[in-house]
Parts: sequence; C-alpha cells; structure tokens
Amino acid sequence: MSRRAPLRVVGQPVPRVDAVEKVTGRARYVTDLVLPGMAHAKILRSPYAHARVRRVDTARAGARPGVIAALSGADLTWCDPYFGPAFRDRPVLAIDVARYEGEPVAAVAAVDELTAAEALDLIDVDYEPLPAVSTLEEALAPGAPLVHTGEPLAGHFADLATLRPQPGTNVCHRFQWARGEAAAALAGADLVLEDTFRFPPVQHYAMEPHAALAAWDETGALTVWAGTQNPYSVRVELAKMFGVPLGRIRIVVPHLGGGFGSKTYAKLEPLTAALARATGRPVRLAASAAEAFQTVRRCSARVSVRVGLRRDGTLVGVTCDADYDVGAYADIGPRVVQKGTYTATGPYRVPHVALDARAVYTNTTPGGAFRGFGVPQLAWALESLLDVAADRLGRDPVDLRRQNLLAHGEEFAPGDTPIDGKLEESLGHAAQAIGWTQTGAADRGRGVAAMLKASVAPSVSEAIVRLHADGSVAVLASAVEMGQGTRTVLAQIAAEVLAVPVARVTAVPPDTAITPYDQTTSSSRSTTMTGRAVQMAAEDVREQLFRVAAEHLGVPARELALADGAVVAAAGRLAYPEVLAIRFGMSGGELIGRGVVAPGRTAAPLGGSTPFWEMAAGAAEVSVDEETGAVRVERYVSVADVGRAVNPLLLEGQDEGGVVQGLGHTLLEEMVYEEGHLLNGTLLAYRVPRADDVPRALECRFVENADGSGPFGAKGAGEGSLIPVSPAVANALARLTGVRLRDLPLTPERVWRALRARGSR
Amino acid sequence: MSRRAPLRVVGQPVPRVDAVEKVTGRARYVTDLVLPGMAHAKILRSPYAHARVRRVDTARAGARPGVIAALSGADLTWCDPYFGPAFRDRPVLAIDVARYEGEPVAAVAAVDELTAAEALDLIDVDYEPLPAVSTLEEALAPGAPLVHTGEPLAGHFADLATLRPQPGTNVCHRFQWARGEAAAALAGADLVLEDTFRFPPVQHYAMEPHAALAAWDETGALTVWAGTQNPYSVRVELAKMFGVPLGRIRIVVPHLGGGFGSKTYAKLEPLTAALARATGRPVRLAASAAEAFQTVRRCSARVSVRVGLRRDGTLVGVTCDADYDVGAYADIGPRVVQKGTYTATGPYRVPHVALDARAVYTNTTPGGAFRGFGVPQLAWALESLLDVAADRLGRDPVDLRRQNLLAHGEEFAPGDTPIDGKLEESLGHAAQAIGWTQTGAADRGRGVAAMLKASVAPSVSEAIVRLHADGSVAVLASAVEMGQGTRTVLAQIAAEVLAVPVARVTAVPPDTAITPYDQTTSSSRSTTMTGRAVQMAAEDVREQLFRVAAEHLGVPARELALADGAVVAAAGRLAYPEVLAIRFGMSGGELIGRGVVAPGRTAAPLGGSTPFWEMAAGAAEVSVDEETGAVRVERYVSVADVGRAVNPLLLEGQDEGGVVQGLGHTLLEEMVYEEGHLLNGTLLAYRVPRADDVPRALECRFVENADGSGPFGAKGAGEGSLIPVSPAVANALARLTGVRLRDLPLTPERVWRALRARGSR
Repeated sequence: MSRRAPLRVVGQPVPRVDAVEKVTGRARYVTDLVLPGMAHAKILRSPYAHARVRRVDTARAGARPGVIAALSGADLTWCDPYFGPAFRDRPVLAIDVARYEGEPVAAVAAVDELTAAEALDLIDVDYEPLPAVSTLEEALAPGAPLVHTGEPLAGHFADLATLRPQPGTNVCHRFQWARGEAAAALAGADLVLEDTFRFPPVQHYAMEPHAALAAWDETGALTVWAGTQNPYSVRVELAKMFGVPLGRIRIVVPHLGGGFGSKTYAKLEPLTAALARATGRPVRLAASAAEAFQTVRRCSARVSVRVGLRRDGTLVGVTCDADYDVGAYADIGPRVVQKGTYTATGPYRVPHVALDARAVYTNTTPGGAFRGFGVPQLAWALESLLDVAADRLGRDPVDLRRQNLLAHGEEFAPGDTPIDGKLEESLGHAAQAIGWTQTGAADRGRGVAAMLKASVAPSVSEAIVRLHADGSVAVLASAVEMGQGTRTVLAQIAAEVLAVPVARVTAVPPDTAITPYDQTTSSSRSTTMTGRAVQMAAEDVREQLFRVAAEHLGVPARELALADGAVVAAAGRLAYPEVLAIRFGMSGGELIGRGVVAPGRTAAPLGGSTPFWEMAAGAAEVSVDEETGAVRVERYVSVADVGRAVNPLLLEGQDEGGVVQGLGHTLLEEMVYEEGHLLNGTLLAYRVPRADDVPRALECRFVENADGSGPFGAKGAGEGSLIPVSPAVANALARLTGVRLRDLPLTPERVWRALRARGSR
Repeated sequence: MSRRAPLRVVGQPVPRVDAVEKVTGRARYVTDLVLPGMAHAKILRSPYAHARVRRVDTARAGARPGVIAALSGADLTWCDPYFGPAFRDRPVLAIDVARYEGEPVAAVAAVDELTAAEALDLIDVDYEPLPAVSTLEEALAPGAPLVHTGEPLAGHFADLATLRPQPGTNVCHRFQWARGEAAAALAGADLVLEDTFRFPPVQHYAMEPHAALAAWDETGALTVWAGTQNPYSVRVELAKMFGVPLGRIRIVVPHLGGGFGSKTYAKLEPLTAALARATGRPVRLAASAAEAFQTVRRCSARVSVRVGLRRDGTLVGVTCDADYDVGAYADIGPRVVQKGTYTATGPYRVPHVALDARAVYTNTTPGGAFRGFGVPQLAWALESLLDVAADRLGRDPVDLRRQNLLAHGEEFAPGDTPIDGKLEESLGHAAQAIGWTQTGAADRGRGVAAMLKASVAPSVSEAIVRLHADGSVAVLASAVEMGQGTRTVLAQIAAEVLAVPVARVTAVPPDTAITPYDQTTSSSRSTTMTGRAVQMAAEDVREQLFRVAAEHLGVPARELALADGAVVAAAGRLAYPEVLAIRFGMSGGELIGRGVVAPGRTAAPLGGSTPFWEMAAGAAEVSVDEETGAVRVERYVSVADVGRAVNPLLLEGQDEGGVVQGLGHTLLEEMVYEEGHLLNGTLLAYRVPRADDVPRALECRFVENADGSGPFGAKGAGEGSLIPVSPAVANALARLTGVRLRDLPLTPERVWRALRARGSR
C-alpha cells in the first residue's frame, strides 16, 4: 500500500539542503582546504599557438628560496605524462611541442602562491614558433600544418575505444552514420533546403575556477581533493598515469562552484598529483578564472544541413555535415561529436538520414564537454532551417514541427531507445505561453525551437542508504553537488521512500574511498540514474523494515506501509527506532540498503542508445534596435519534459540558468582568436549575460507525465533549456525582420550589417 | 569449492597495513588536525576532592585578549549538561558541587593553547570544602558523606536500563545473582576457604592522551573528530545532550594511540562540543597525559571469596562479595561490576554460586572500562584462593584447575552461551612451556592462573565491502584502529574471501557519516564481530561475482571459485575487471557487499550471555630479592584460546602488551590517594613497566581449534593475557616463599614486610 501513497516530499519545492552553509560562506571548496606542509603551484603557459619547445630551464626557478620544485615536461619520466579520456594526447606539461596559446609548459610548487608566481619568471623556455591552424578552414586545408604528428594512444576509457584519429590530417575523429537512403529521399523531396551555420567557441565560465589539492602518502597512495564532476573517471586516469591500483587513489569532491562540463575528466589533477609526487608534499593548484579559458571550452562548429520535405510538410530526409573544432587536444571532443551528431535530426521523425561529422584539431584551447554536449551546435542549424522550410511551405513553424515530432513510445531509430516523453506537450505549452496564436506588438517577433538529447550510455550509478538507530537517514552516493541541487534531490528521494522529513536525511559528499561508484555528474543524469539508485537503496531498507515488523507484528509484509518515520499496520505502528531495537536486540545497529542502476547498452547503433531522452522546447519574443542592431529578448518561455519535477524550485533555477547561459552564446559570447592568439580570455574582456540581459519575462515550465525511467517517473533535465535558445531567438528575429542569420552570436554588429544588407537588397 | 580452499592470507603474520604511516610519523591523530579558525581549549579543575562550588567568575578570563569563551557549569543552560553511559550523573563542568580532585570546573577556549592556559588563572572559583570519602570503607560507613545526593538520571543507553543506584547511600549499583544453594553447598563442603583480596586503582596510560576537535555548522550539525573507541556511542550521548538527530552528528576517528577502555563512551567530547557551540568556532581540546589521571581509571576493588571443595578437589560452591570503587561518577563502572561479577567463578564448573557486588561512589577519579572489564579484580581473588586450596588438599594447582574446568560445549550457566574453547589445552600449554613438571632452580617459583571472560552482549557490527572496477577492494567498517591492528585484520579477512593480496584492500577509518554501525571497539570483539561482518560482506560480493560469471560462462555457480583476483571455472577464468565490465557493460561500476552481525541477546541471565568466551591461561616463573622484597618475573608464558589467529604477529604483539600491562598492576602500579588527593598523578610519579621490567623470556602462544564464532573460527583475544598475570605471579611467589599476598601491587615494601612477617612467625 505504501507504493500507492501520494507523494509527500518528491514534487515539493524543498529549499536546498546546502543553502545555509552556502549563504554563510562556510561551504568548503577545494581552495578552502589546507593541509600541513602544503605547497602552492603555479603554471607557466605557452605564449605561442604552436611552437617547438627546444629547452625548458627551470634551474633558476628551482633555486629561488621558497621554491620546492620546478618541473617541465621533460622531467616527467617517472609517470605516464599523457592523459585524456578519448586519446592520451595531452601532456601534463608540454613535451617538445606546445600546441596552443596557454598550454602548460612548466610548473612551480612553492611555499606560497606569490613565490610560485614570481618563480615562473625565472624559467627560461626556448621556443621555435611553428605555423599554426586556428580555424576549421585552416586545419582542413590541404597541406595544413599538423597539430599532432604522431598517433595518439588510446584514451583511458574502454567504452570510448570506437574513437579513431585520422593520422596525417588534423581530423581527430570522424563519425558517419546513415539510415535509409538520404540522397534518394532528398532527390525526391518537394522542397530541399541547405545551409551552413556556425557556432562559436565559448567558455563555461563557472564561478569557481579549476582547483585541485593532491597528497601522496608513504605507502604510495594518492588522495586528490578536486573540483571535478566525475571523481571516478579522474581516478581511472590518475591510476593509469601513475600505475597505482584504483583502490589506492582517493578522489574527494567538496562543494563545486559550477561545472557545465568543464570539470569532467582530468583537468588540473594530473599536474597537481605530479607536483605532489615531485615535492613529497601536499600541493594545491588553484587556477585563476582567466586560466579556465586556457583549459577547456565548448567545441565550436560549422554545420551544413540539408532537409528534404514533402509539400505537406513531412520531413523525408536530412543530411548533416558537421565539423567541430576540438582545439589542440581531444579531451572528450570526439565523443561530443559522435554523440551529438547521432541525434542531429532532433526530435523529428526522419526516415532517411546521412550524417558525417568530424572532430578537428586546431591550435586553440581544447574543446570538451559543455552543457548540451554537441547538440546546441546542431539544433542551431536544424531548427533555423526548419523555420525557413515553414516559411517556404507557407506553414506555421509550430505546426510544421508538431507534424514531424516523434511520438511517445516511438523508437528514435530502429532498435534504439523509445521516446519517453510528449514533446508536443512541451512545444504546445511554450507556444501558448508566448502567445503564439495571438497578435503581438508590431515591434516584437516570436520564434520557437525544440530539441532532443541523449544521455550517456551505458550509465552506471550506485548508492547506499543507511537508516540510523534514531530513524535518521544517510545517503551515500557519488553525484557531485555543483550548485544544481543534487544533494537536495537525493535527500528528497530517500525521504519520500522512507517517509521521513528531508531534514532527517543527510547526503555526504563524494569520496571514492567511501561513496559508491557513480559514472559522472553530467549528461543530465543524476536525478534519473543516481536518484534511481538511491530510490532502490531506500526501498531495500524499506523491505528490511517490513520484514522485521511483519515478523514482530505477525502480519504479512504486504499489509504494512511506512508513514511518519514508522512502519504502520492496521493493528498499530512501530517507529523506526523500535523496529531497529527489535532487529538488533539493543539501541544500536542500522539498516543498510543498496541500489545499483546499470541498464547496459542497448542494441542500438554505436553511442546512440540512451537511458532516457531529454526533451525541451523554447519560445522567444524579441525586439531589435534597428539603429544599433542590438537584439533584446523580451520574453522567453522554456518548457522541459522532465517526467516528474522532484524539486520544482531547483529545476526552475537550473533551467533559468540554462536559458541565460544559452542567451550568452546567442547574443554575446565568443572566444575570439586572431592568428592563434585569444583576444578576450579574461573576465573583463569576455562578455557574458548580466542581470540586465535576463529577459524581463522568463518562464521555465515543466511537462510531468511521470513517464521517465528515473525515480517516481523523473528523467533528466538541465541541459535541454539551453539548446532551443539560439534558434528560437534567431527565428523570432527572422520573423520580425526577415533577416536570417547563420553565425552566432547575434552581435549588434552582425545584426546591423544583416539589417543593412536586407535594406539594400 | 572456494569455501574449502586452504587459507592464504588469514593466519599469516602480515605486516600491519598502517606500519609505514606510523613509523614515518605521518599517521594523523586528533591533535594533528587543524581547522580554519580553530580555537584551543584548556580546563580548570577542582583542587578539592569534594567541595561546594559557590561561584565561578569567568569574567576576567573572558576579557583577556585572545580568549573567545570562558565557561562554567552554570553557563550550560542551552544543553543537557549531564552525560554518562550508565547514569547521566556527570556534568560537562561541575554544577554546584565538585566531586573529585581534578574534576573540570571551568574551561577556556582561546586563539592558542598558551592563552587558554594562562586565562585559567584568571578564573575565580569560590569553593566550600565538603567532607570527602576516598576509600570503599569510608564510602560504605554508616552516615558517610554522600558523593551524590539526588537521583541521577538514567544513562543514554537503553540496554543499560537494568542498572539502579541506591539513593541515600554511596552505592551506585548492586548486582546480586545466585544459582543453586551456595550456603548449603559450602556448609557441606570438605574444605571451605575464604579470603579478601584488594585490587588497586590504576591508570590506562595510553600513549595518546584524550583529545577531541568539534565543529558545528550553520545548519546545527556537529562533527567531532575524537580519539574514541566507540564513535557510535559518543554519537548517541552527544545527540541526546544537544537534542540533535543522530544523522546530524558525525564522529570521525582518525588513528588512536591506545585505548584500553579509557576511550569508551564520551569523555572530552561533550565539553569540546559545548565549547565549539559557545564560541561558534571549531574547538580542539587536547588533554595532557597527566589529565588522563583525572578522567578515568580502573575500578579498584575489594573482593571477598569463599570457595567450597570436596576432598577430591571438586568445586561445589563459590560465594563472592565484591565492592568496586567507581569513583565520583558512574561512567560504565556499574556495568563493569555487573558483567565482571557474573563470571566471578572463572572458567570452572561450579554448581552453587551466590554473587553480590556493589559499585560504590567515592570522591576520586571516575572508574570505567579497562582491559579485562572487572574480571582481573575477581580472578586475582579466585585464582589466588584456588592455589591455597590446592595446597590445603595436597593437590597440584594445575591438576586441581584442570579437574574443574568447564568442558568445550558445556553451558557456562544453564541456558547461557556454551563454552567455545578448550581451556585445558591453554592451561596445558602454559604449564608445559614454563616447565611445570620439571624441577626448577631453587631460587625460582612457578605459578599458573586461568581466566574466562564474556564479551559485550548484545553485540552488533555491520560492514560494507566494495569491489572496484580494477579488482581492488575497500572495506567500510567502524572498528577503531587503536594500535591493535584491526585495519590489518579486516583487510586480511576481505583479502581471504575475495582472493586478492592484502595490498589490494583498503580499510577506511571510522566515520559515522560513512562507515556503518559498529557497537564498540572493546571487549575483544572486533575480529570476531566486525570481522564476521566484513567476511559476510565480502561473501556477498563473492556471490555477486559468481552470479555474473555463472551466467556469462554458462556454468552453475557452484562450479566456480575465486583465485588470484579472478573467478575460476574448469573452462577458464574471468579476472574481476572482466566480470565487472560484463556486469555493467563498461569499465566502471563496482560490486557492493553488505554484512550484518546481530546475534541478539540469548535467554541467559541478565548481562551474562556473550557471543563468545575469551579464555586464556598464564604461567609465571619469578625470583625475589629477599633483602629488598623486589619480585622479578623471569619468565612468563601466556596462552590464549583464540579459535584462529587471523594475524599471529599482531596477536602476539597484543598479548605481549597485555602481559606487560598486567605486570604493571601486579608489581608496580597504583594511583595513591591521601585524603582525596592523588599523590602520583603524573607520568613522573606514576611508575609503569619499563623495557627492563619485561620478563627476559616472554612467550605468547595460541590455541587454535577454529571453534570461534568469528571469521574462519576466530574469536576474541587481547584482554585474556592480562588477567592471569597477577595471580600467576602471586602464586609463583607463594610457591617460592610461602608468602600469600592479598593486596596488589606486590611492591617491594609489601613483599619485604610479608617476608619479614613470615620469618617472625
């Protein structure tokens, strides 16, 4: 009967459990941690986009009082100095060659940060500048200088073994996939449209810069406190680099101040661990905000899409040729390309598809994971082109999309995960909320867009739930709290199953020595996968409660329920402390529940399966200053199909953030390179949305049909809201002005030039 | 088939897993920990054994620069200021009355230890001295001053609810128990002997003094890093004192430098937590070694035993009247008395028994748990008297004991736990090793003694074992590593079950937020109970390995075994990483095993049941300097029935320590009070055994019949070796000199006086 009870905690806008420690400034981040004898590190970075590193002389730096160690790449003979999830192509410190401006070339560990920083000036590096490629065009040109000349080693993760570089070119990985006969379908289509769209390189701009603190002990075991979204992946990389068993490496993640993908896989941890080993001391490496620009970014892209439709609006074929710029090192870029491109057709039924995507090395900051994982680049193209198609067919853009949406339960591709939501509801809500069918002001334009995104697969999460002697609960899981509220959500799930208030539940921070395996805190997966593991672990505890109480009360377990911290039967109730006292014969002991979620990989095509689909729609209303070209988003509605909003408050916050972050690359953001030199790699020069850039009316809504595979029908959210922003805004602008822009961001200059070009046409 | 394999790791003298961190000085103890903003505390203690505390003025101390808080008992209005496991009779700081010299009266938290110490001098306390009772005789005299006048509240532990103070007296608890008709049996016995023996108050003298570090966060959650043997019990006490749910209190135990019972239940933790609350800062309270003398000690005792035997040597009846001095506060003293006295008849078959014991308050340092838990006091009496009986009956003392020993499988008392060892083997080995039947040197005397001890019941331990993706193993359990080697033993047990080297297993330190419930690290229970939980958890993992491999290989699970980190079948082997990759469809995920040991309380009499019996025998060969009375133990053999020595190296170390600690109270140690003033409460004045006091020949041997209820047939050890020391030495002295001493320690003066008295007889 408990399984039928109405939800009590799940679905409530519970305040975040870490609110007080955060607003009082007591939440600890890596840079708040201090170990006895700890040294501080600083990095010397390449001033060249591409250069041979002929010699690094650290002798003067090493001799400076207060300096404990000064290392260059050549010094790292006692470990595998290369890391990287896709390919082991990235050296801890440049070896022989520096491949982008800002690449770490040497590092110093000293008694304090100032001494370390000053010692950097004493390092002499003899560079021989090499020709560089800063753009896709340069990198793909025949005879282009090669960013990498040797064959990189396979990365650290067996499930990424399908990734293949193309030696002798700058193509780091190529992904091709087709179903049906796309060429024939397009040839037979009534309307074929083709266009090329560009998406800029942008920064994650997490509030907390990258940081790590590493300490080896005398037994050869390593502990790293790291701001990382996936401690278990970092553990694998470090274990292989240093030749240490997994169990001897401990990754602890205190609070994390924003990730957005920038803190997936190893970043500063390898260098920090190497410095700690070299110095024989704990070493903390706290990067500056500007150094984030030299660490990882979103893969920029050039996407050419062809869509073929019948006269009645039915999509018959799509081809997509996408080139992603992954910068100087692969990071997880090839997977971004592979995974994103597989869903290039978005949430639409397309029988004939041909996809061809390349991850391309350039001499720029490495591109990796970033909220949306390759999909924003493609949705920007497809959703823009669909509006053009609607225009050409004389169709309403919402109707045209609706007509082609995949249905609930329909397989995304033959044999692949069926669609687990109702996108027509999201799109309908978004259109209705923006007043789609109503006549708006003449100086306003409206646009919509939709998206569909896969999550990582296979996808493994595990959890332990402990019921203490006084009926309070501890959740052990390794999902990282990075501001998104996962600790609160996991606590709610355990509180719901075990019928206790959220305040009685504690979720501890991830620590690979202690909290069980969780694959990654990314890919919108934590509520669904980790949450499900926590739910299962709590249910395991519930079954144990039922078993003890059933025997004690002499009633069948099926007649029992949990309510208000007690096992309840028709005959009476046993509070949890009583049940535990019966179980253990004393006022001690605890029930331990275990949950393991490992859905496995389905039979679907490579990388294409997903444990759930993330789906969202967006609708924008914009105005434009024709004098300056400044676009203003006046209203924005985001609707995400989340199955079940475990915590509407947190979800709303997350989606508002997603929309605003999407407005960044839509209107403002771009890392601008000139001959390999990043012009705006500082907080001052790089413009992100400010409070006054947020639309005056910003609504984030949710579709909840409890049809997700996560706990209580929930499924992933948090990335989806970002993805429709660019095309919805651009579609609104096009509907207002008749101007179709293909390159992001929609800067005033770009818009003004387009408006002028239109005027002159 | 795996279950039949010969043992590979268990039984081996594996070096301790924490050896390197300890010998390099890097093992962290509480006093090595530093938190940002941490304050340091010092305690002002009563100079009187008994005094009314009329007024404590902390104003001047509080005003001193650097002082953050100065507290007296009257300030503690915002918590329950009383604690104690048996009765809540002990205030955090004296309230109205100070009941022993050294009782905490006020405390200061300051920016550093020196400032805190200096501020103590600025506290004005107005004492009114009261008449004190320092001895059992004084405390039990009619009209004696009362140490406690009100009725103390029940303690924090429901399973101690049988303890009852006797209001209006200094009797803190009385335990009476009888079976058969002791009076009649003694009346009909051929030989009745009666005598009274005294056991001194002694110090645990752990190398690491008591220490705690407490920090509250803004959410009202409390973390305490504490040198405690039972973090879960401390958690209960603090939760009740501060009105906080268990799950909001986290007790972390880093390394602990020796406990011997002195670190069971709350000691400094309540005061440290109160100071942290008052200051709003983390507070560390690190006591000095001398302050241990003012914190807890062994309960001294006066034990009167009557034994009745038939002419043929058969024991027919025993009565025992024991008074234990538990000092000014009950601590766990009443339980020591109850539990110890229940086994006052030792390892012998005695049909008629009448026991009457009292725990008595005096104005001295509180008496609590100490290695042996009340049994050394009784064994001193009984084992001495049995030698007198042998002498009177013309029997060999070994033979007389052997004749009366309880047999393997025989119930200790009707309905109680059957004897699970062969004490005759231990006694035989001890006698043989000391050369009992051989003629020795004329100036040497030999003596033997035996003992039996119950462990705590009920007794609950839980564990989690995690098998990582690379086949390494983590053990999560809350047994405290306090030098006895429990981390090594638990690692060995997991390594044995999972067929990996010990170096592949990591056991993490106890942390109530993370590692599962364990009742206490005391009572010789960890290897048996926690070890069994770890074994079960590892077996749970093993079953999961079998399940996955059986399905994959298409063979029945019963045809599988584990060897060298792999599942082995006739057809081939799957290394653990392969099994996990099959299970999870990727190179991640882990198997989580769970073990719960909760044997429950048997139907036996109150407190008398035990999950296992600890049994040991000792044999001593001594010489005496007739000129000075100095007794020298020339040889000592200890034989313990351990079922299975999981790690003979550690076990030997532990038993050698037990023997030497036993030699302390046998020959040297006594806390000497004069009118309530402790004369020798410093490391300088209090004499413990030194290296040159260790017998030149000291052997610790083990009987291993794999008949224990712990893992691989192991059962508890570590206390047993201490208990026979005093009677074995005294019996040897008596056999050498004809002198029977009844009071410990056997100081030169006491022996010399006895020798002189003999000479003049």
